[in-house]
Amino acid sequence: MKDYDNKLCINLLGNEEQRLRLERVYAGMAAAGISAALIRSNANLYYLCGRVFRGYIYISPALAQPLYFVRRPSTLKADGKNVFHIRKPEDIAGPVTVAGTVALELGALDYCEAMRLAAVFGMPQPQADISSILRRARAVKTPFEQQLLIRSGEKQSLVYRRIPHLYREGMSDIELQIEIERLSRLEGCLGQFRIAGSEMELFMGSVLTGDNADEPSPYDFAMGGAGLDASIPVGADGTVIKPGMPVMVDVNGNYTGYMTDMTRCYYTGTLNAKAQGANELSAEICRRLASMMKPGVAAADLYHTATEMAEEAGMGEYFMGHRSHAGFVGHGVGIEVNELPVIAPRSRDVLELGNVIAIEPKFVIPDVGAVGIENTYFVEETGGRVITTAPEEACKLD
Amino acid sequence: MKDYDNKLCINLLGNEEQRLRLERVYAGMAAAGISAALIRSNANLYYLCGRVFRGYIYISPALAQPLYFVRRPSTLKADGKNVFHIRKPEDIAGPVTVAGTVALELGALDYCEAMRLAAVFGMPQPQADISSILRRARAVKTPFEQQLLIRSGEKQSLVYRRIPHLYREGMSDIELQIEIERLSRLEGCLGQFRIAGSEMELFMGSVLTGDNADEPSPYDFAMGGAGLDASIPVGADGTVIKPGMPVMVDVNGNYTGYMTDMTRCYYTGTLNAKAQGANELSAEICRRLASMMKPGVAAADLYHTATEMAEEAGMGEYFMGHRSHAGFVGHGVGIEVNELPVIAPRSRDVLELGNVIAIEPKFVIPDVGAVGIENTYFVEETGGRVITTAPEEACKLD
Repeated sequence: MKDYDNKLCINLLGNEEQRLRLERVYAGMAAAGISAALIRSNANLYYLCGRVFRGYIYISPALAQPLYFVRRPSTLKADGKNVFHIRKPEDIAGPVTVAGTVALELGALDYCEAMRLAAVFGMPQPQADISSILRRARAVKTPFEQQLLIRSGEKQSLVYRRIPHLYREGMSDIELQIEIERLSRLEGCLGQFRIAGSEMELFMGSVLTGDNADEPSPYDFAMGGAGLDASIPVGADGTVIKPGMPVMVDVNGNYTGYMTDMTRCYYTGTLNAKAQGANELSAEICRRLASMMKPGVAAADLYHTATEMAEEAGMGEYFMGHRSHAGFVGHGVGIEVNELPVIAPRSRDVLELGNVIAIEPKFVIPDVGAVGIENTYFVEETGGRVITTAPEEACKLD
Repeated sequence: MKDYDNKLCINLLGNEEQRLRLERVYAGMAAAGISAALIRSNANLYYLCGRVFRGYIYISPALAQPLYFVRRPSTLKADGKNVFHIRKPEDIAGPVTVAGTVALELGALDYCEAMRLAAVFGMPQPQADISSILRRARAVKTPFEQQLLIRSGEKQSLVYRRIPHLYREGMSDIELQIEIERLSRLEGCLGQFRIAGSEMELFMGSVLTGDNADEPSPYDFAMGGAGLDASIPVGADGTVIKPGMPVMVDVNGNYTGYMTDMTRCYYTGTLNAKAQGANELSAEICRRLASMMKPGVAAADLYHTATEMAEEAGMGEYFMGHRSHAGFVGHGVGIEVNELPVIAPRSRDVLELGNVIAIEPKFVIPDVGAVGIENTYFVEETGGRVITTAPEEACKLD
């Protein structure tokens, strides 16, 4: 199952792919007047060199190559030119000679670490932020990143197609979820669910049925659910799946380090008619938004179109929740599940070629449950291209 | 499976239990000259009120009760005295009237958020850190927290006892791990693996066999493993389990919001003799350390005793790794897996009654694999009391 073998070379991307990514980052840095940046977060290290390691990447358009400072693993080969082994952050200062402001990941480093790294570069205080520049750079995926996303989408779609066969009569939401988790893992799901920021937490995704779908969660996901414990209050809560009730499945699509995001609904018996209609409406909203999903379109326009369609259908009060409403209908996905652009009413994001966007128009119907589908799309010249291909109709559990 | 029902009341601990915890925190604040603190991280919110929510807890010994500022879920009941709904952090300022320094979680908040929260209290810069004070307070568990840990230990031990029955001939490390994950989840494992800091990542734990055990990882865990992908390079890598090779299982023990930490070894055929001996040595080190684990003992002494025993047995070069060595032999556990005290050579921690410590003397034997056991102990007057009770002998897979 292992698909990487080079244990010595730090840059697993190759120079050309790395250059494509750095060009976008450098453009953002130039616009912000930043001459250099130091990267430490796992998500951004993985973006810039194709692997997670413990240490730092120092980037500057003034350098032919990034500088790598490795704390672990020490087996990564140092060359004394671009790759250095260090024991502590203060060891970075030696090889770095670029003058000017060194930006730090101020949206990812904790305060103490940010202050310590600023001091490494002789700054009494962090001067500039690279987090938001990287976030924006990462919103446009390279062809290679798109390949990884396509692979995740294929695997995830295959798993979703098999979900009906996992059901056994009398199962609870969490019991079905556990079988989906197992099947996902057997198909190569890496499990790890990367989310930017430290407030949101989720383990392998969520399966919602019945009234539990109407339980608000503290986390900023599209849907809630009480969860099994007050320490992780989201998702399945042990509700037994009943005939007619929709079962909404939204589980981890990280098969390659890049996540696709997909939701589909299932049921036993005969699906509640209102739920059936809402699921069809959700698919219709997805199709409409996909047709709009071209470079230059305002993200907020997608959001408004979705809410208008929901309201025109008389389903506004159930749209994106009932007792509690999510403030968005879609979001970028990639290394993390909450990337740019954000499809929300006040979003200033404008779609770009290469954006990868999950659209999730969902409805929570009280006493029934949650329905709706979610797809991941590439933004292309002709509109959104879907990469999550399991059938969109609510599907009967065997 | 759900074991919490109160969806309205923010403090699920009750006043008495909360008071026990706050007393320790207030003692630490008094020693540091801090009059108030604002808490935001999920782990510390859970510690202080028994639930994760999105918002803040403001604590001060000058107040009869903490103040709660809730962003989500809005269903939590506000009373206008101690519990307030807010939309943004700036809304906190109104109800807060305590003068003096307000400490922030400088080891958990990102730089931007720390600066923003400091400004809420009129401070141009964060003035004091509450992260380390909470970390130290949390190192001593209350009787109620110990009950939750005992429950986690019982569940985890039950799962480990059943591992031999999960094996099928020809399985790889990851295939066995997936069956262990499923069984754990069916027994109530919450999945979520909380780790302090943002550098370490792990999904549900690790199963190591053969040479993969000798692959260094970037993460600061006791053992490595290449993992399945460069985006999450730790643990199982798809190695097929071979007769004689140890299979080391160290998976998630979070059944209650509080994690126990346990490792056991398994094998097929006849276990390699050196591995067998090393596993027995590991159990012996655990027993010796448990006998020392009394209040007042220096954590560093435990570490030195463990390394001396490994060296006396001629196993020093394999102890805590081979190509790469971990710098500790144990650590506190609780809400997070890397709590205090740290059992390391330069640790200044001194054991206290109520500490909960995982001890994991492990060996990596090249060309064979990893062996060793890990137990979680309560520090009591008479020594360590083990709460992870699966048999310690290497166990044959069915």
